[in-house]
Amino acid sequence: MRLQDLSVAAFLDRLAAGTPTPGGGSAAALAGALGGSLLQMVCRLTIGRDEARPHEAALGATLGQAADLEGRLRGLVDEDALAYDQVMAALRLPKTTEEEKGARRAALRRANAAATDTPLRTAEACHALLGLAAEVAATGNRNALSDIGSAAQLLQAGLRGAVMNVRINLPGLGDPAQAEQFETRVAHLEEEGARRLVLCLERLAERAR
Amino acid sequence: MRLQDLSVAAFLDRLAAGTPTPGGGSAAALAGALGGSLLQMVCRLTIGRDEARPHEAALGATLGQAADLEGRLRGLVDEDALAYDQVMAALRLPKTTEEEKGARRAALRRANAAATDTPLRTAEACHALLGLAAEVAATGNRNALSDIGSAAQLLQAGLRGAVMNVRINLPGLGDPAQAEQFETRVAHLEEEGARRLVLCLERLAERAR
Repeated sequence: MRLQDLSVAAFLDRLAAGTPTPGGGSAAALAGALGGSLLQMVCRLTIGRDEARPHEAALGATLGQAADLEGRLRGLVDEDALAYDQVMAALRLPKTTEEEKGARRAALRRANAAATDTPLRTAEACHALLGLAAEVAATGNRNALSDIGSAAQLLQAGLRGAVMNVRINLPGLGDPAQAEQFETRVAHLEEEGARRLVLCLERLAERAR
Repeated sequence: MRLQDLSVAAFLDRLAAGTPTPGGGSAAALAGALGGSLLQMVCRLTIGRDEARPHEAALGATLGQAADLEGRLRGLVDEDALAYDQVMAALRLPKTTEEEKGARRAALRRANAAATDTPLRTAEACHALLGLAAEVAATGNRNALSDIGSAAQLLQAGLRGAVMNVRINLPGLGDPAQAEQFETRVAHLEEEGARRLVLCLERLAERAR
């Protein structure tokens, strides 16, 4: 059963349980999905209104992109938990003979690489959605300004939570060059995401006056 | 049916739909509940470990408090949507006669006050949980540092989203003195919450070294 098929209450219970998965990576992906869903709502509450006529085509495109990114983030809620379960499975492999040790090291490296790539994809999707949030902040229904703001905060939480989950895995990659590539990428996403959040909130504050 | 009884996927669909509820206020409460659940997980992954012995009693108390606050936030996911539905119901009341106008104004004021108080309670609970996150950052299982960080980001998103939902309702209260009381309270929560987040992240960065 996929995590997204659990009830919200059951998902919260699973998160609170004393097992490492689902954990922060899945919660970050869900934060991003919540932000993406809110942006879709705002697009839908805007399209069709007189004052939105000039932005209608752009809002339609934004709605489609937000739905696509939100769908990816839903999937990442499960993928993150599965990726981490693989790391734990690799840790449990036997390590008596030299052959076993080598196989375990290789499995652990593969699992760590996947467990690093998964939150990176969460961060990428949240970053893209923050760009859409900044657009919608300029053109979305004025009655939904606090919804756009809540969406942006959730996307920032998803982005920053995912980035922490990437960074925590970097030493386990056992490959400093690959670790540096990941670090360069997440540092960029974090910086650019913070800029997008500020732009979005500035636009919202201006329109709330 | 309560929103928390919907599947995660169905909740995301309801959020994305072109109706104002559930909206940013419910999403903010859920962000807070996710953060509260993650903190409970970290307490459970810490209690019982040798190095946690000196903090065991404190962690047990934190676990109980986090569960209580998270339970309140679950409830606020629904309460926020119900409170906003009441505002919309008041807006639809007849306003032909003077008597109707007066009754509508009174209903709108009551509904707006409730729709402002609900996200305030979300902000209060997220703020309290951010205090717990800063504690757990100092004493929680070292393998769960990125979970604590993700929790703190979610709690900050819940707090800031809820504060925006309080502020957007203040003009509708029709009572400048009451509006100022709300504003003083949320400004304090926001400022203190930001401080707690920074403290939490500093502690995590120190321990990750």
